[in-house]
Amino acid sequence: MGETMADVLTGVGVSPGVGYGPVLRLARSVPQPDADARHSGDDTAEIQRAVQAMQDTADDLSARGERAGGEARQVLDAQALMARDPALSDDVRRRVGEGAAAERAVSEAMAVYREMLAGAGEYMAARVADLDDVRDRVLARLMGVPVPGIPESDTPFVLVANDLAPADTATLDPELVTGIVTREGGPTSHTAILARSLGLPAVVACPGVESIPEGTQLLVDGANGEVTSDPTASDVETLRAAASARAAAVAESSGPGRTRDGHPVPLLANIGGPADLGAAVANGAEGVGLYRTEFLFLDREHAPGHQEQVDAYREVLEAFPGGKVVVRTLDAGSDKPLAFLPPMGEEPNPALGERGMRMGRRVPEVTDAQLRALAEAQQGTQARLQVMAPMVTDAADAEWFADTAGRAGIHDAGVMVEVPAAALRAHHLAETAAFFSIGTNDLTQYTCAADREIGALGRFQDPWQTAVLDLIAATATAAGKADRSCGVCGEAAADPVLSCVLVGLGVTSLSMGATALPLVRAALAQATLEQCRRAGAAALAERGPGEAKRAAREHLPGLADLGF
Amino acid sequence: MGETMADVLTGVGVSPGVGYGPVLRLARSVPQPDADARHSGDDTAEIQRAVQAMQDTADDLSARGERAGGEARQVLDAQALMARDPALSDDVRRRVGEGAAAERAVSEAMAVYREMLAGAGEYMAARVADLDDVRDRVLARLMGVPVPGIPESDTPFVLVANDLAPADTATLDPELVTGIVTREGGPTSHTAILARSLGLPAVVACPGVESIPEGTQLLVDGANGEVTSDPTASDVETLRAAASARAAAVAESSGPGRTRDGHPVPLLANIGGPADLGAAVANGAEGVGLYRTEFLFLDREHAPGHQEQVDAYREVLEAFPGGKVVVRTLDAGSDKPLAFLPPMGEEPNPALGERGMRMGRRVPEVTDAQLRALAEAQQGTQARLQVMAPMVTDAADAEWFADTAGRAGIHDAGVMVEVPAAALRAHHLAETAAFFSIGTNDLTQYTCAADREIGALGRFQDPWQTAVLDLIAATATAAGKADRSCGVCGEAAADPVLSCVLVGLGVTSLSMGATALPLVRAALAQATLEQCRRAGAAALAERGPGEAKRAAREHLPGLADLGF
Repeated sequence: MGETMADVLTGVGVSPGVGYGPVLRLARSVPQPDADARHSGDDTAEIQRAVQAMQDTADDLSARGERAGGEARQVLDAQALMARDPALSDDVRRRVGEGAAAERAVSEAMAVYREMLAGAGEYMAARVADLDDVRDRVLARLMGVPVPGIPESDTPFVLVANDLAPADTATLDPELVTGIVTREGGPTSHTAILARSLGLPAVVACPGVESIPEGTQLLVDGANGEVTSDPTASDVETLRAAASARAAAVAESSGPGRTRDGHPVPLLANIGGPADLGAAVANGAEGVGLYRTEFLFLDREHAPGHQEQVDAYREVLEAFPGGKVVVRTLDAGSDKPLAFLPPMGEEPNPALGERGMRMGRRVPEVTDAQLRALAEAQQGTQARLQVMAPMVTDAADAEWFADTAGRAGIHDAGVMVEVPAAALRAHHLAETAAFFSIGTNDLTQYTCAADREIGALGRFQDPWQTAVLDLIAATATAAGKADRSCGVCGEAAADPVLSCVLVGLGVTSLSMGATALPLVRAALAQATLEQCRRAGAAALAERGPGEAKRAAREHLPGLADLGF
Repeated sequence: MGETMADVLTGVGVSPGVGYGPVLRLARSVPQPDADARHSGDDTAEIQRAVQAMQDTADDLSARGERAGGEARQVLDAQALMARDPALSDDVRRRVGEGAAAERAVSEAMAVYREMLAGAGEYMAARVADLDDVRDRVLARLMGVPVPGIPESDTPFVLVANDLAPADTATLDPELVTGIVTREGGPTSHTAILARSLGLPAVVACPGVESIPEGTQLLVDGANGEVTSDPTASDVETLRAAASARAAAVAESSGPGRTRDGHPVPLLANIGGPADLGAAVANGAEGVGLYRTEFLFLDREHAPGHQEQVDAYREVLEAFPGGKVVVRTLDAGSDKPLAFLPPMGEEPNPALGERGMRMGRRVPEVTDAQLRALAEAQQGTQARLQVMAPMVTDAADAEWFADTAGRAGIHDAGVMVEVPAAALRAHHLAETAAFFSIGTNDLTQYTCAADREIGALGRFQDPWQTAVLDLIAATATAAGKADRSCGVCGEAAADPVLSCVLVGLGVTSLSMGATALPLVRAALAQATLEQCRRAGAAALAERGPGEAKRAAREHLPGLADLGF
């Protein structure tokens, strides 16, 4: 407790830990040129000015990509390619030739390009934000204003932004950034995922943060979502003590996941392919709770052959002798079109479209081939293979999948619960599904009818929304009655306090990005099963996500001591 | 019962009644030209051939529009404009000039046009199907194959199709078409809405119907969704007897809606503006359950002024002295962008975007101006004004809307329940919402995560999906406990059997397109409140929509007698 009241804002805590330092703000807004800005005089010089700015921007993006490496590099290289697109520079030349100022020519040519992207299917449309970032970078160069991005600093600071783009975060230095606060975004936003992977405390969906003056000392509590301006010394001290207690708790806990009183809660990893196995094993995963198999299918003319699939699946199964590996069958839809699936046409809302197992039922030969490859991959390994279908909606879906898997020789076939109807009718799905795995990201998206990708709807993308907890409780209860296991494999599982609540609601295993495993293992070790149950019941009794989290924490004193 | 077993297919009955006659199939598929088809010789003649086909198609569409009148005319005139677009014919000329055959030139030019449309925001993207229809009509003329559309016939027939487009149905003659069966589509599809408005029996989402040979005698039961091939004479007789009993029941029932034992269930109309008042009054609506106010705001540079709004609202309020009029505040989103709202950018899934009251909270001045106009409009009328907000998600939303309406002088402020979270947490929303109105179309869409506009997902767009019934029951129960009214204003209210189930689940009023009112009034008059309750409980106990409907009907013997 501080000796005087400091100003406190509340957002959604998405990555636990404590950050403290002066506010530095992401420079983002670049003035847009006047709609009729003309240059005066020399076309050639003006063209040169425009082309140079595009070239410099491309070079800068490539260089950032090289420094960042990994997936970030791919995003930045793609942006550099946009800035180097010859059709784009031709269009800029033409517009300058007709008298437009370089700034306006760039802005207008980009707008045409943008329209094309937006119309070229969901996957490309998602690149529109990347293109806007390229435009702003080029315009900033032309106008001589700061290029958008992470501010320069030699000393640690708290990064404050409206939201973060991949180019912003790729070269973010975790030694200098002590915490992140954004006005928009939700628990599944790019900011949240990045912060968790870097272990940086982060609070998103925090309105009001845009008004805090640059340089103000800010204390960021990524566990409870509180952001304190000009905190007192004892505020800082309290939080720092909790952070070091937490680090100690993480260091002490190891082995299989369990509550303080020994109730086992298997801790599993979400993986996207064999490349993620190293991190999973290093962080003590007891198996794989979600193996996304899309990587095998994307960007290909034909479906992968039998042997290629067998090899990829076996590599994962062999990494967990004695452990369980839950494989999700292909999750394709119109926003990730695959060349070898029937053309789907434009869907007005791909998230509500013919995706996941809906597509799986339309191309049963693809589903069947995948299941047969999985059945063969398991032979000779010690892992326990389970398969599950995405976007299962009703009992008829669950039955179709269990039948199809059974014919392929796999009898441990379950369903993802990510559609509200599946959660509400879990008791009927349990008649044929061998287990449930709750995908909290999509379940939250549909329950609150709020797209995961829209920053302004961050408030509704929170798995602490009590309606989402209702559906999780309904699913876990139905599973318990039917003697089925019920895991969670969405981002919710990676939230230490929520992980205890989930266990209290009847969830039997937790699967998450591997880097979150140690913190969740430590959190579970602080609470008894009875405390988890009381925390779950207390959360369900509340109206909104903030109240639910506070109420749950009151029943989890061991976690509160660690500042979770 | 027939004396021998006939072949029976089951789909979703969306418009009650019995149709009987030989199958005629909608000619729809037109062969597409080869990708490298070239013409041999005279460019001018080939251009003339292409342009003539486009001109003839445009003339035919205009003529159909003139015959059809009303809204259909607008759709057909818009299609004729596409066929007459000079940019399109220029592009066709150019392609023929480069050697392409007329068919290929038309197809390729249309593809470019299509891409533009698809990229130009959601509203235009929905026109893509209309453009495809124009293309097929032009190609059919060029190739000398039948133009797609309703088959020609002098005798009554059952129309069978994959799905129906506006141009197909605009000139459909209800004297000749005795019933409609489509393979795709759901209860909110164009086919379903059209069939109900014409009083034609219709079954949608009926796989297998595509294999029934042309000319087969088909019996269509639009109440229970059964489609019987080569029915026996007694099959036909039984259903015909029910149809005439139903007509008699409709003729006998009048006045306010009530169950057989006198439990009042106000029957209200959904309207889109003052133009719909005539039909509402003619069909005995007791008030308005859903007044969509978008018509005032669409296609305008500026929000409508205070007095214009007051006048439009007052016209509706004055039509129902003593009755209630429930007005929904502006429901805008990125799929229907309005010039005077802040630009929204492309949303990957507009149905899950910043729409309805989410936009209303972002532009509180627009919401406030609308509420103040409504408050003033009510003065001096005898109607009971209620206002409700669309897309309310949680208790904080409900509270914001009640506060905002209260400040504008309206204290009867409720919420639409169309987001699953709102239904699950209705008990918390009831703390500030004065009433609930369940929008079953969107509620079904979100609960089953299935876009209303995707024909292939018709199975999930059925309000008989038991998970949807769960949420309706939860909402009505919460409303009852808090002494709040709970209406239904989606397509579900227009289904006679479902209307009884809804009443049994605790729904207190039903609002629908005015033409459906007499049939629902007659249906309610056949069942006691206790029967409705038993039917509701029986439906909830089932797994799927078909079972639920059958189980409900068993408890509603009066309705079964009428073949509902």
